[in-house]
Order: sequence, then C-alpha cells, then structure tokens
Amino acid sequence: MNDSQKYVYFFAQGESEGDATMKNTLGGKGANLAEMTNLDIPVPPGFTIATDVCAEFYSAGEKLPDAVRKQVSEALTRVEKKIGKKFGDTSNPLLVSVRSGARASMPGMMDTILNLGLNDETVQGLAKSSNNERFAWDSYRRFIQMYSNVVLNMNTSLLEMTLEDLKDAKGYQKDTDLTVQDLQSLVEQFKTQISETTSKTFPMDPEEQLWGAIEAVFASWNNDRAFTYRRLNGIPDEWGTAVNVQSMVFGNLGETSGTGVAFTRDPSTGEKVFFGEYLMNAQGEDVVAGIRTPQPITRVAAEGTGLRSLEDECPEVYKELVATYQKLEKHYRDMQDIEFTMENGKLWMLQTRTGKRTARAALRIAVEMIDEKLITEKEAVMRVEPASLDQLLHPTLDPDSERTTVAKGLPASPGGVSGKVVFTSEAAVAGKENGEKVILVRVETSPEDIEGMIAAEGILTSRGGMTSHAAVVARGMGKCCVAGCGDVSVNELEKEFRANGYVVKEGEIVTLDGSTGELFLGEVKTIPPQVDGPFERIMEIADRYRKLKVRTNADTPADAQTAIEFGAEGIGLCRTEHMFFAAERIDWVRRMILAENKEERERALSQLLPMQREDFYGILKVMGDRPVTIRLLDPPLHEFLPHNDEEAKELAQRLDVPFSDLRTKVKVLHEFNPMLGHRGCRLAITYPEVYVMQAKAIAEATAQLTKEGNKLVPEIMIPLVGEAKELSLLRELVVQTLENVKREQDVNFDYQIGTMIELPRAAVTADEVAEYADFFSFGTNDLTQTTLGLSRDDSGRFLNTYVSKGIYACDPFVSLDQSGVGKLVKMGVDLGRGSKTDLKVGICGEHGGDPASIEFFAQAGMDYVSCSPFRVPIARLAAAQAALS
Amino acid sequence: MNDSQKYVYFFAQGESEGDATMKNTLGGKGANLAEMTNLDIPVPPGFTIATDVCAEFYSAGEKLPDAVRKQVSEALTRVEKKIGKKFGDTSNPLLVSVRSGARASMPGMMDTILNLGLNDETVQGLAKSSNNERFAWDSYRRFIQMYSNVVLNMNTSLLEMTLEDLKDAKGYQKDTDLTVQDLQSLVEQFKTQISETTSKTFPMDPEEQLWGAIEAVFASWNNDRAFTYRRLNGIPDEWGTAVNVQSMVFGNLGETSGTGVAFTRDPSTGEKVFFGEYLMNAQGEDVVAGIRTPQPITRVAAEGTGLRSLEDECPEVYKELVATYQKLEKHYRDMQDIEFTMENGKLWMLQTRTGKRTARAALRIAVEMIDEKLITEKEAVMRVEPASLDQLLHPTLDPDSERTTVAKGLPASPGGVSGKVVFTSEAAVAGKENGEKVILVRVETSPEDIEGMIAAEGILTSRGGMTSHAAVVARGMGKCCVAGCGDVSVNELEKEFRANGYVVKEGEIVTLDGSTGELFLGEVKTIPPQVDGPFERIMEIADRYRKLKVRTNADTPADAQTAIEFGAEGIGLCRTEHMFFAAERIDWVRRMILAENKEERERALSQLLPMQREDFYGILKVMGDRPVTIRLLDPPLHEFLPHNDEEAKELAQRLDVPFSDLRTKVKVLHEFNPMLGHRGCRLAITYPEVYVMQAKAIAEATAQLTKEGNKLVPEIMIPLVGEAKELSLLRELVVQTLENVKREQDVNFDYQIGTMIELPRAAVTADEVAEYADFFSFGTNDLTQTTLGLSRDDSGRFLNTYVSKGIYACDPFVSLDQSGVGKLVKMGVDLGRGSKTDLKVGICGEHGGDPASIEFFAQAGMDYVSCSPFRVPIARLAAAQAALS
Repeated sequence: MNDSQKYVYFFAQGESEGDATMKNTLGGKGANLAEMTNLDIPVPPGFTIATDVCAEFYSAGEKLPDAVRKQVSEALTRVEKKIGKKFGDTSNPLLVSVRSGARASMPGMMDTILNLGLNDETVQGLAKSSNNERFAWDSYRRFIQMYSNVVLNMNTSLLEMTLEDLKDAKGYQKDTDLTVQDLQSLVEQFKTQISETTSKTFPMDPEEQLWGAIEAVFASWNNDRAFTYRRLNGIPDEWGTAVNVQSMVFGNLGETSGTGVAFTRDPSTGEKVFFGEYLMNAQGEDVVAGIRTPQPITRVAAEGTGLRSLEDECPEVYKELVATYQKLEKHYRDMQDIEFTMENGKLWMLQTRTGKRTARAALRIAVEMIDEKLITEKEAVMRVEPASLDQLLHPTLDPDSERTTVAKGLPASPGGVSGKVVFTSEAAVAGKENGEKVILVRVETSPEDIEGMIAAEGILTSRGGMTSHAAVVARGMGKCCVAGCGDVSVNELEKEFRANGYVVKEGEIVTLDGSTGELFLGEVKTIPPQVDGPFERIMEIADRYRKLKVRTNADTPADAQTAIEFGAEGIGLCRTEHMFFAAERIDWVRRMILAENKEERERALSQLLPMQREDFYGILKVMGDRPVTIRLLDPPLHEFLPHNDEEAKELAQRLDVPFSDLRTKVKVLHEFNPMLGHRGCRLAITYPEVYVMQAKAIAEATAQLTKEGNKLVPEIMIPLVGEAKELSLLRELVVQTLENVKREQDVNFDYQIGTMIELPRAAVTADEVAEYADFFSFGTNDLTQTTLGLSRDDSGRFLNTYVSKGIYACDPFVSLDQSGVGKLVKMGVDLGRGSKTDLKVGICGEHGGDPASIEFFAQAGMDYVSCSPFRVPIARLAAAQAALS
Repeated sequence: MNDSQKYVYFFAQGESEGDATMKNTLGGKGANLAEMTNLDIPVPPGFTIATDVCAEFYSAGEKLPDAVRKQVSEALTRVEKKIGKKFGDTSNPLLVSVRSGARASMPGMMDTILNLGLNDETVQGLAKSSNNERFAWDSYRRFIQMYSNVVLNMNTSLLEMTLEDLKDAKGYQKDTDLTVQDLQSLVEQFKTQISETTSKTFPMDPEEQLWGAIEAVFASWNNDRAFTYRRLNGIPDEWGTAVNVQSMVFGNLGETSGTGVAFTRDPSTGEKVFFGEYLMNAQGEDVVAGIRTPQPITRVAAEGTGLRSLEDECPEVYKELVATYQKLEKHYRDMQDIEFTMENGKLWMLQTRTGKRTARAALRIAVEMIDEKLITEKEAVMRVEPASLDQLLHPTLDPDSERTTVAKGLPASPGGVSGKVVFTSEAAVAGKENGEKVILVRVETSPEDIEGMIAAEGILTSRGGMTSHAAVVARGMGKCCVAGCGDVSVNELEKEFRANGYVVKEGEIVTLDGSTGELFLGEVKTIPPQVDGPFERIMEIADRYRKLKVRTNADTPADAQTAIEFGAEGIGLCRTEHMFFAAERIDWVRRMILAENKEERERALSQLLPMQREDFYGILKVMGDRPVTIRLLDPPLHEFLPHNDEEAKELAQRLDVPFSDLRTKVKVLHEFNPMLGHRGCRLAITYPEVYVMQAKAIAEATAQLTKEGNKLVPEIMIPLVGEAKELSLLRELVVQTLENVKREQDVNFDYQIGTMIELPRAAVTADEVAEYADFFSFGTNDLTQTTLGLSRDDSGRFLNTYVSKGIYACDPFVSLDQSGVGKLVKMGVDLGRGSKTDLKVGICGEHGGDPASIEFFAQAGMDYVSCSPFRVPIARLAAAQAALS
C-alpha cells in the first residue's frame, strides 16, 4: 500500500479527474461517467475507487486499506460541497449509490446499492427535504432490502415475503398501495428479521454502511458466478473491479420525475432509430423489474400502443435527451446504451456504455456508420464479433418461445432444430425417407453413422467433446449438434434415453439448441437464418484487409459448393477416408484390409480406384482453379471393420470368408491407443499400395479435368509424418505414381506434395521435414492431443473440472492452447520456413474456425486457415481483424 | 570428381602413404596395413582405394571414375616395381588380393578375392616361377570360383557341385587329391558353366578382372545384408568402404608355407596368453573353412591335444611372430586379432585389428592393461561396452548347446531360461508352488499378471514392444523376457500356442533367450552369470569418473535391495500403483473406484492407507539415507477393474454390488485412448483424496522412520503434468497433507515435491512448471509416445518395418530419439533450470539404462539417471564413459 498513490477519482461536471481513456483504472462505468462530465453532460457528482484497490483489498485480507478510506472521505466531502448536502445529515442528507464497474462488463458481480446513507434519522430529513414522506420511507425500505442482500448476504426472498404478507393482509395489489405507516412498520420488521437471521444489526451509521457496501463490491469480484464468468470469457482475475460512489438523484419524487434506459440505435435490427423505455415516478430497478409496463421514449414507437411517449409527456427533457444521446454516439462513435433519470424535471445521465447488439444489428450499424463517416472501414470490421456470425447462418430458437429444458451438453455445432428421437443411423435414414424430421441420439457417433447424420436434423451424443466425431462431422455439415451431454443416459435396446428424471422414447419430439448445448422436450419455434446486405458488405471489406487466405474442410462436392458460397478460397482438408464408408464401398475397403498378401490387397484396391477417381473428379471440378488439398488415408484400419460379432458374422457371409478368420483379424487389428497406432502415413509405409491407389485416382481425375481444359494443381497431403524420412519415401512413391499417369495419359499438370504437422516430433524437426514438403498444414486437433497427452474422445470426463478450476482457460480443442501447442506451431513454422523460404503453411484443425486461434495463426505467419464451410465467414472476418489489430 | 584429389594410397615397408590415424579415409584394414609397414613389420605391398571413392562410384552410376582408374594403375606399377613382378606377366606374374575395408568392421559385405591376375597364360608363368604346377592350377580354379561368385554373382554351389562330381567320379576324398590334369579340366568346365549361367565370359584380361573386383567391392556396400547390418549397428550409409589391393603371398606353396590367425590375449577369458591357430601348406580360407583341423600356435596350448604347435614346427617363424604380436599390442595398446602367412619360411602379416572379446574378457584385459601401465584408468573405462555387461548379470544359453529355433521376438529382458509352458498367471503360481520351472506365455501381460510373472522363470508375449508392460516389468525384476513374438499365436482356450508350424501345448518345455529374442523347443543348457574382480574394479573406477548419479526404478524392498547391491544410489522411480494390485488390496482399490461419492471413496482409501504406509516404510527403510522418489498414482482407474463379464460377476458378488452397476461403471470408465486419458495427476485434480491418502502414507512412514532415528528426505513426484497450474494445485494439496502429519505427530523432516516431464507441453512450458517443482524427472517412455504419436503397445506391428526401411535408426523405446524427443528433453532441462537454477533433473524412463541415451542425458546436464536394478552397472559404466568422452 502506497499512501501517496491516487486511489480515488472525483467526477462532476467540469471538475473530473478521469476520462474515457482510463478504463483500466476506473472501470468502464467510472471512465464513462467521468467522460460524460467532461462533455458537459449532467451527471450526479461522485467518485470512483480505482481497480488497483481490488488486489490491495484481497491482499489485506478482504479489508479496505486506510489510505483508501482516507481518500474516499476526502472525495465524499468534495461531493457534499458540490451538492450542498451532507452525508448523514439529519435534515437534508446526501444519499449515494454504490456500484461495481470492471474493465469489461461482468454479470454475476454485485451490481448496485441505492439510497445509501438512510437510517432512522436521515429518513426524516429526506422526508422533510423532499416534502414527500412516503417517498422517503419507501426509499429507506428499498435500501434495507438491497443492503441486506448484497452486503449482509441475506436471502432476498425473506424480506420480500414479509412485504408480500403485509400486502396480502391489507389487501393491496401493488407496492405503491403501501402507506407511510405500512412502510415504517416494514422497516422495523426488516431490521428485526435481519438481526435474527444474520446475527448482525443493520448499521445505522452511514459511514459504516458505505464501507460495508464498498467492501461488498470488492468481495463480489471473487464470488462463484463472477469467477465462472471470467473463466468463460477469458477475463484475467488480476484486472479487479472499480467501485463507483455517486450522489443519488430520484426518479420517484413525483409526477415530474422518472427514469429510463435507451439505445441510440435498435440493438436487435441495427436500425438507426432512438430506442428506449421509461417510467414516470420510478427508480431504475422498477423499469427492469417489469412490474409496470414501461413507456416508449419516441412518439413513433408509441404509435398504436396506447402508451404515451416521453417525447409527448416531457418534450423539454426529451429534447435534451436526444441532444445528449446524439452527442454521446458521435463522441464515442458507436451505438450507446444509456441510463437516465429525471428529478423534478431535470435530466441526469447515470450511465453510457457501448450497447450490446445482435450479430445482425452489429453488421448493419457498422455498415451504416461507415456511410455516415462516423467510423472507417477498418473500424467497422473490428466492431463485429466474428463468432457471432454463427447466429446468422443457422436457424435459431425463437427466444420468446416456451421451452422445457431436459439437459445441457456442449454447444458442438450451432443451430436450433426439432425432430423425432431415433437411436440408430438406419432409423434416421428410414425416418427421413418417410418425410420425418429426426434427431439422432447416440452415446457417441462413429464413421458408420454418417448416413444417419446426413439424414438427421440434428445430433445429440451423451459422450465426446467439442472435437468428437459427432461434433466435427456435424460442424462440417453445418448441422446442429449437442455433444457430450453427460446427463443423458442412452439405452439403445429399450429405445429410450433418460435425463434428469425425464424418459424420452423413440419417436418423441425433442429440440436441440446447438448454440447453447441445451436439450428441450417437444418442439420449440425457430427463427430462420438471415444473411443480408450488411453481411455481404462487411465480408467484402474484410476480404480486402485480411492477409490470411481462408479455405474449407470439405469431403464432398456438396460441402465444397456450400463453402464456395460462404467465400472459401480453396479446400484445406479433403479427407479421403470419409469416402470409404459409403455402403457400396465399405466391403471393398474391408476386403483390402482382410487381404492376406499384397496381390489380394491390390485386387481390392483396384475396385476402389474408379470410385475414388470419381470422388476426386467431382470435388476438383466444383473447386475449379482453387487449390484443393487432399489428405491420403489417415485412420487406423480397424475403424472400417465391424465392431461386434453380429456384424462380423454378416460381413463374413457377404465376403465369403470364415467368421473365425474375420474375428481373428479384427482382434489382431485392435489397438490399445488407436490415436497413437497404425494410422496415417504408417499405413503406407507398411502397405504402399494404398497410397499408390489414392495418388493414381487423384492423378487420373486431374488428367481428365486437365484434358477438359481446366487448369488445376492438386495438393496431396501425407498425414501423421513424424520423421522426415517417412515423407521422403512416400513423396517419391506419390511422385512416381503421378508421373506414370502423366506419361501414360500424355497430359501435363503440376502438383504439390506436403504434409500435416500434427505430431510434436514433426514440429520440432520441421526443418528436416520441410526438405520434402511443398507445404505444411498444421493438424492442430491431433497436435493438441499429443502435445497435451489428451484424448479428445476421453477428456470429456475431466475437462470441465479443468476449466472450472481454472487450470485451462478454455477447452483446448476449441481454442488453441497458445502457450503450449502454439509454441510448437510457431517452432514448426519458423523451422520449416528456415529451411524452405517459400514453404506454404496453413492449418486445417478445428481451430481454423476459432477467432482467437485465427489471430494467433496470422501472427505465426501462416498463409491460410481452413475450417468447416459454415465457419468460413467467421474465419474471413477474424482474419481481417487479425490483420488490422 | 576432382582429378587432382588423392584417391589411392600406396603401402609397403618404409614407403607407405597412410597410417593408423587415417581410418576414415583408408578403412580399418587399410589404415592398419599401412601402420604395420610403418612399424617395419613385413606386409606384402599394395594400395588402398579411399572410402571417398564409394560415394563417387554410386553417383557415377556404379562405375569407377577415370581419375581413380588412373591412380590405381600408377599404384599397381609401384607394387610391380617393389615386388619385381608384373601384373599379367606370362612368366612371373604379380597376383593380388582384393578386399573391402570400411571404417567399422562390416560383416555382410564382399570380403575377399585371392589370386587375382591369373588367366590361361599367367597360370603357366606361376607354375614356372613357383616351380609347382599343381599349386598354380589349384590357385587358378580357386580364383575362378571366388570371382564367379562375388563379381559375377553366380551361386557358389554350381561350381562346387562340378568339383564334387569330379571327385566322386575319380573316387577322391580330398581336394588335395586333385591332379594337375583334374584341375585343368575343372578350369575349362568352370569357364563353360560361367558363360552358360551368366551369359558373360570369364575375363582373361587381368586388368578387366581387377576393375570387376574393385567395382564388386564397392557395389557390395549397398547389398541387403550390408544395409541391414548398418541399420542394426547405427553405421551411416555415407561412410562408404575402402578397397585394399595387395600383392599375394602364398601359404600353400609347400611344407615351409602356412597361414594362421591369432589373438594377442584370450578373447573369451581375457587371460594374457598368445592364442591362435594355423595350418601348414594352406591358404587363409582353409583355416576358416574347418575342413582340416587347425593346429595351436603355442606349445602350451598344444599340450595334450596330440597336435604340433607352430612354436615347435617353425621355431624361427614363431619367434618372429611373437615379437611382432608383442610389438603390435604394445603399439596399439589393445588386444589384437592378427592374420599371417608364411611363404617358403618367410613371415608376412596380412592384418591386425582390435580383437573382439566377451564382456568378461573385456573387463579382465582392461584391468590387466592398467596394471601393465599400457593404458590409463580412463582408457580402461572406455574399453568396455556397457551393454555387454548384461551378459555377466544373467545366466546365458550355452553357445555350444544344440537347439531348435521356433520363433524370434524382441530381446526384451536378457538371460537364458527354460521351463514348462503355462498360459495364465494362476497356472504359473501353481507350477511354482509345485517346484516346477515355468514360462508364462501371454498375448500381452497386464498388471494382473504380476504374481504369475514373479513365479515364472521367463515371460513370452506375442504382442507389445521393448517397453510393453511385460518388457518393463521383467527388466525391473531382472527376469528373462521375449516380447512381441509376432509369429507366436496364443490360444488360451486350447492351452497351446502355434508358431511357424510348431504346436506347443501347456506343460511342454521351451527355452527363451532374452538377449536375442529367440524361442527354442525343449531345454537348452545355460551358463551361470559371472561377476568377478575385474568387474568390481572397473565399476569402482567408473564411479570415480562419472558425474551422473545412478538411481534405480524399484517398487519393492527386494528390488531396492538388489539395486543397492548393483550400486544404485537411490530410487528414481517407485511406482505406487504396482502395490495396488496385490490380492488383498485390489478389492479395496476397486471399492475406491466404484465409490459413488467422496465419502465412500475416502472410506475405501482409509483401508488402503495403512497398507501403503507399510509399503513406503519398507522401501524407505531399505534405502536408508539414499534419495527415494515416489510417484503418486498414475494409471487410468479402469486398469484396476475386471476386463470381462465373468470376473466382473465374481467381483460384484464379493463387493456385494449389483452386477449391472459394476458393468456400467466399467463401461463408463472405458477409454478409447487410455494413454491420453484420465490418468496421472488428472486423477487427483478430479479426486484429490487419492493423492491425499498417498501423501499421508508417505508422511506417516517418514515420520516413523524419523522417530526411529533415520534421516531421510522423501521426494514426491506428481505424474503427467502438462500445465503448471496442475502442479501448483497438487503441490499445495500434498504440502498441506505432509505438514498436517508433521504437526499431528510432532516430528520434523524435509521433503521435495517434483514432477515428471512426460508430455511435450510440460517440456515446452518447463519454465512455468519449474516454479512449483523441486525436481524434474523426465518420463521418456511417455514422452516418446506423445512426441512421436506412437503407442508402445501398438507400434510392434510396424516398428520393424520402420527400422528395416531405415526410417528409425533403432527402436525409439530402447534408445532415445535424440533429434526429436531429445530436443524436447533439452528444452525442458534448459527452460526448467532457466527459471530455477538449482532444479534437480533426472530421467526415469527405460532409456535410463541405455548407454547411448545416457551419454545424451549427461550432455543435457542431468543430475541422475534411473533404470531397472539389473541395468544399474551398465548405467554406471555408461555414465563414466559419458563423463570421459
């Protein structure tokens, strides 16, 4: 504690010690209050206790240091002088509000105590000075209620019940029916209840009230809800909160008083209209509480509602308010969310801050402010939260629709959908064929469920994280998915699932909210997606500023087409194994796997060759001259084999092989840790003919398209390289195969051969690997798994604990772990470019669609990111922001 | 190709252009030939074509560059002048030998062609000049046989059969029965056979013969056997071989000629005696071929054999040979392996090189040479191959014993053992109780097999690598193990295994060689381990020079005791989970896992507490004041649960829980990739009470020992840390627990808390992790798995392919992958010490017992290595070598 340090900042018109630039010290609210006074806008005088004090408060054992107390007393005296009232004065008492105010908006913290300074004596003074005894006593009982809750930690409902009991006894409908006597008796009862419940006496000393309130604000910085909120929003614990103490003005002094909140533009649509509500003769909390219907501020808004507007009711105040909001919006150059109070006809501003808005509104406001020359294009791009665009691209649940929550899982892929519950892929396909909407419910999906996932409206799994199979595939399809919903216990045999006491049977309708992870009973109404002019305009601007290219992860021509429409500039990851699961192919894949020797294997592969050629032809054709990166076979072979005896028996019959042989093969191929097993390029080191077939299919498709007059340069990607020699061997194999096709077909085309960097070893030896690579694509999913030693399929069990205990700031499969995995990524890029300057570098993990990760990739000097089609607009915007920040 | 560069080095007494220091250029053989001439030892003149030419040969498309041909011709002329014979001369022809000679000895390459220069004309000249027509024609037919094989790639047996046919037809017993006419007719037949089989004419031009032979030597550098040998022995492909061309001397000119090989000391025991064999009237190949019984060189050795010694037969030559070998050993200051030829009573030396020896001989020779002041202590330490010590510490198979090989797996843990085959842990225990020796045969062992592994003489698994469970545990026990024997197909139901056509049933006897990985039918005789004076002496010297401390991995007092006897200075890894598998404990462990809440879990843990305390008391007591690192629980919990329904049913009954609940729990705990799952410190982040129990047990054991007057500082190790916050949280938990015990028991002791660095993330953020760690112990097994993305349990299927294709130089679980994993280790050490200068750093993976890895760890600046008890002497010696090199 440094006694000479400044901890408290006074504010009042023309005399403020702070301004809007001092948010880190004064918090958002405090800085803006000071700024308004600097703009000569009427603000009740007060002072802000700086955010630094928060840390001092905790290190002193949750006590306010003396130096702070001293500076607070001095500032309070200054307020008294300014207002001409004295704190604790029994004839004309100064009352204050105490509010928290962190750098970032922080729901969950203690918010507000009003009317502080009232006690059994000053209430009399207030009655006299306001000439309104009822007002004084009502203010007092409100104060006691608030204080008992936020400072004394009493359950609000206790005093509330006493109040309701009284109203019932007297036959009152509304709080305003309470008489002075009623209120006086309530105050007495409250005080008794407080001392009985908390064993503390309600403090009569205004100073004691003030210290208690200030300390309560600081203490609320570390309550559970605030802590969780910071975790979820990446706000550092060290920031701390400021405390604002401000002289009270009253909107409930009578019929020339009132209070309201407003937005300088419509926060839902972005339309440039003044938008707000107010109540006459009320305090701020009354507007929020919704007991009385607030009135619209503008005449236009009031039209047809039967309500009067502020514009009509108090034209002078309205005029001043309009001038003020325009001044504020122009000054802050952004849409403002303001609070005001009229006290006996005088307008006071209590708050201004940047207004929250929907994605749609954010886009419209940004675009219109460019046209109004209020902000630059660059600023407009920075104003839209990339992740929020997700809302625009999927149908969402109607927020006004009724709903019964059954359980909550992970928001794996956004959108709001309803449908009949089915438990198997077959049932999903059958339902779809019958014209029904279905929700596929599985413990966990596997590649065999693809058909069912395509057929379903949405997918619900009880296991798996944000990058589980279900989550990744659903996002790729732009399909709603709630994953890892641990409360749901699926019983496939009984065709039902249970969750939190609910039992849902096959055929019953449920609704998923993929943006929140919620599961609801029955159908919930949805709102269709909205993409309009401002969206296109911002995207166009973003594209001009960004340096990162944006590609997509797509395995089918349909996905590729969608992605192009969303602005994808190429394919960063085309997974060839997804093509292997189609019904007419899987048995040939299995024959290939079950082959006893190279010849049998090649025979099966020769059957797959024309199919793969068609696949590649289709997807390459859609993509035109855009770059397409095709990854050769990656998953372990056992993924393609049946997982139980029943299926194995069927397959044995179909393939005409002894069941026992098949079962043995399945057993032999079983792996303890398939993630770290015989997969990726390791398959081709042992069975080169597999990659030869795939390379041939790519070459033949390219040859055909080249002959048809297209110009394309396919990029072939070898997965799971850990050692440069693997790539060197396989590169040679692929080059030979491609050159053979070029020679045989007498056609010429270029190609690139590169690798995924998805193992720590590849990252730390990237200089060696780069010698054989035309490009690197960082597979950050697997790189996260190996670097952290964390299976994405298994970590669901403890990842929540890790986040809630603050060990991980967030799910490392959603947002890149920059200090760990990121360090290896950076190393990989630098070593790779060090040995090959023109090495093309991109990223194709799920992180390619995460704004925070995209900023990191831009800083790391990557050439492109690749993400699922529906994330492409997000990536474009995030890339632009990365370039501009 | 640089024409002015020197490619060919002449050698002859007093005129040599090379010496022993030029091994890289001349190869071992060429350098030593030159060195002998420099020592004035008689060596037939010749020249060496440098190793650099090998690369030129390959880059020129397997052709000898002109510059080389020119220099060879010049050198040949010099040899002609020196000898006074001319190459290709029809009256007194110069004949030469052509031999390969790489920097390191390289079996598998083309070795020798003798008598080169003979053709239909020069053979007449040789007959005349030697005055021995039979000798000349016999030399010619030998030359044709050798040349047709190694230069023309003809199968040796073809010409051999022709020779045998002739002998049969004539009724001859021995080659020496062949007359001049026989030999002449053979030569003609050989030439015809060669042109028929190879479509090439046997070259009559001596120059053409010479170029063919030289090119064949260079070409043999890349034959399959040579390639494989280099892979297995870590010899770089770039080294290349030299070629030695040397004038012939003949041991087969008559009864005053002969040839022999000798060692300057006994290569088997190390005893300081001259040790060798010779044959009169023979060429070198006759000694090796074993057709005639060679005679001993010394009189002492001949005693009682009925054979004459060289000492008696040619005393003058013997005297000169003794003087020469003594000169050579003194000059080279090491035991030499020499080859010599007498031509008409004159001694010629053909080769000297450092002699190969057994581990026992190496130790004795090293120690005796110190005492002879021939070498220093430091040199003696460098002379013994650390890995070879393994031979001394385990019984080994008698090399002279008959054997039938059934299959070959990985040499997972050394020793030679025989016993009856059993297929279950129970059968192994039962067999042991009946006094039988048993070999436990499993597909793969798991922690449940511990009792059976203890009971068995040796373990054979059909799956798993060098660091599989079976391999690691067996090595820890010093028990013979052959792992990953892929040819063995185990049928537990039928109680038999099949391998390469053999069917072995339970109860039949097999023998394992854990040093080679071989499996034999029946019993093979063994030789007991031998540890004697020289071993102790070298260990004592090693201990004085080494800087690395050597600890052991031990989980029981017995293992700890063994390790101390082998010189362990502490325990680097005491795994606490092994203690959990004991029969009387496992059910309590399972109750702990199945607990529905914290209370139930703590109840079960409280039952385990006294048992763990006893464990720790026992092991800490044995170790005295030596440091002991105890790792808290590491494996995923499902490892402790039953793996099939039958066992689960039994358990359910025993624990009195519903079977369905148990099965559900097993299912819920199942993991797709347990290696990357809910294990290590993650268990304690979710269930802190588990580590609390373990910390308490350690503290209580330490308290008791402290009260008993011991002074010990237990080191508690938190596994699988990936993020500093994990360690920070758990460190606090452990410290609290320990301090509570100290307070309760009013006893004081110090302790250290550290972590394993076994995840890439821990290595790259080691600066942050070090803030909460008193020590780091690198868990290189898991670090290898995660860095390479390679499961040690699953990689057996393709690891061989990787090594045989040269992608990995060796199994990365046996010898540390220095360029990948090693880079992270180095980073971890440097970052850790950067943030905490006095951080203690060690390594406790299996690599702690591997000499090459130990050298790396020493360079990385580690304080200690820890390995299984039987590897401690190896580590001590390797550590000394690391300090000295």
